Amino acid sequence: MEKITSTQNAKVKKWQHLTTKKGHQKYHQYLVEGWHTVGDALTAHEPVQTLIATGEQLDAHQNDLPDTIEQIEITEEIAKKLTDTVTPQGIFAVVNITAATRVAPAGADGAWLLLDRIQDPGNIGTMVRTADAAGFTGIVFGKGTSSRFNPKVIRSMQGSQFHVQLTEGDLTEWLQTFQTANKPVYGTALNKDAKNFRDVTAGNDFGLIMGNEGQGMAPELMTQTTENLYIPIKGNAESLNVAIAAGVLMFQLNQ
Amino acid sequence: MEKITSTQNAKVKKWQHLTTKKGHQKYHQYLVEGWHTVGDALTAHEPVQTLIATGEQLDAHQNDLPDTIEQIEITEEIAKKLTDTVTPQGIFAVVNITAATRVAPAGADGAWLLLDRIQDPGNIGTMVRTADAAGFTGIVFGKGTSSRFNPKVIRSMQGSQFHVQLTEGDLTEWLQTFQTANKPVYGTALNKDAKNFRDVTAGNDFGLIMGNEGQGMAPELMTQTTENLYIPIKGNAESLNVAIAAGVLMFQLNQ
Repeated sequence: MEKITSTQNAKVKKWQHLTTKKGHQKYHQYLVEGWHTVGDALTAHEPVQTLIATGEQLDAHQNDLPDTIEQIEITEEIAKKLTDTVTPQGIFAVVNITAATRVAPAGADGAWLLLDRIQDPGNIGTMVRTADAAGFTGIVFGKGTSSRFNPKVIRSMQGSQFHVQLTEGDLTEWLQTFQTANKPVYGTALNKDAKNFRDVTAGNDFGLIMGNEGQGMAPELMTQTTENLYIPIKGNAESLNVAIAAGVLMFQLNQ
Repeated sequence: MEKITSTQNAKVKKWQHLTTKKGHQKYHQYLVEGWHTVGDALTAHEPVQTLIATGEQLDAHQNDLPDTIEQIEITEEIAKKLTDTVTPQGIFAVVNITAATRVAPAGADGAWLLLDRIQDPGNIGTMVRTADAAGFTGIVFGKGTSSRFNPKVIRSMQGSQFHVQLTEGDLTEWLQTFQTANKPVYGTALNKDAKNFRDVTAGNDFGLIMGNEGQGMAPELMTQTTENLYIPIKGNAESLNVAIAAGVLMFQLNQ
């Protein structure tokens, strides 16, 4: 097995690059961290190219690491270079971004969560995890939404990215294709003229759009939805956190 | 108006201390940051002792800062010392911790959220904000739950701490008092033998206990509840984030 000890090694530099948007575009690969996510990627037969781990992590997981995948041992110091967490978990995987991860709206069955310019990686990751738990089929990352390969997004998805379908897409196109197929698409609005979410029963196939943390959904999307939903706010809070609102709505719509 | 320019000033050291648990115990005061929260504290007539702000922030909010409260001007450099955020907002308030913020369970009406050893400050803050939006009366911080005066908790509450009642308490005592008064207390469990949350309709007065992120609710509390609820998980996610679960349950119970 190859062992790398220098933080200046060209492979280390490449792996660091795989935590950035530019690196994802250049190499069509991304980096995942921690046994929870690495293990889930292997279980889900994701296209893992390389497994990277400290000696300690290699020992701990040797029985679960397939021989067919390249393994490289690194030092704790290199592990620190590959993450922005305070205590790196010492195990990483390089995963290929394949064309197969792109889903066309026309073939999309089931419940889909559409993200319109969501910024906060923690919110995005939590929504993916919740969509998984609520039985959603997939999540569409619309333009302006933080990347699904962003390390913080990956961390907070906690492996759910391997249980549901994630894809990038043009939300207008998704919305129109759904509606042509007679599948409803629900928007969300902080507006009492919208429909109370408790009065909606969705079928098996539908879309739910969540909008930007500060600005909400884009107005041009809002006018095209089947219906826009609101969650009645009783107290004095100005709004709900977008991931909380998404959770309440997903468990209401997909019963 | 007093103006402080040295980061070594004794008042600056005290304010820094007011972001720590020891400081809260010693001075019975805590520090809040940012106009959103400072403004909400003033609007709610919280016992604000001192307003601290950079020249720019003083100018921006002069009309909203009451003359009756001491104001101290600080430099940007001091503002940075008082926060762990990357871009400090430059306005702070020293707020007194009063005995009146303690609520006895016997007098507790309405819907109450009880936090059993919740660790993550962001989760706690989000739950307080959501409880406010869901029309809850108050939140009890049980033993082992991060402090409601922790700067990160304060930040993610976004002012909701001034709209609902926050108190520390012994959850066993709260549970027993509620049940003596014939008010139900619902626990939460990741267990299909528990009751499906959709089958519960709560009255106006009840308690809802959320448990530790990793371990869930303490077993000794779980045996004393009126009923334990679970949220059916459809996909392959192992669990829901505790703040998401709390959001789904609070909007179900307090319709």
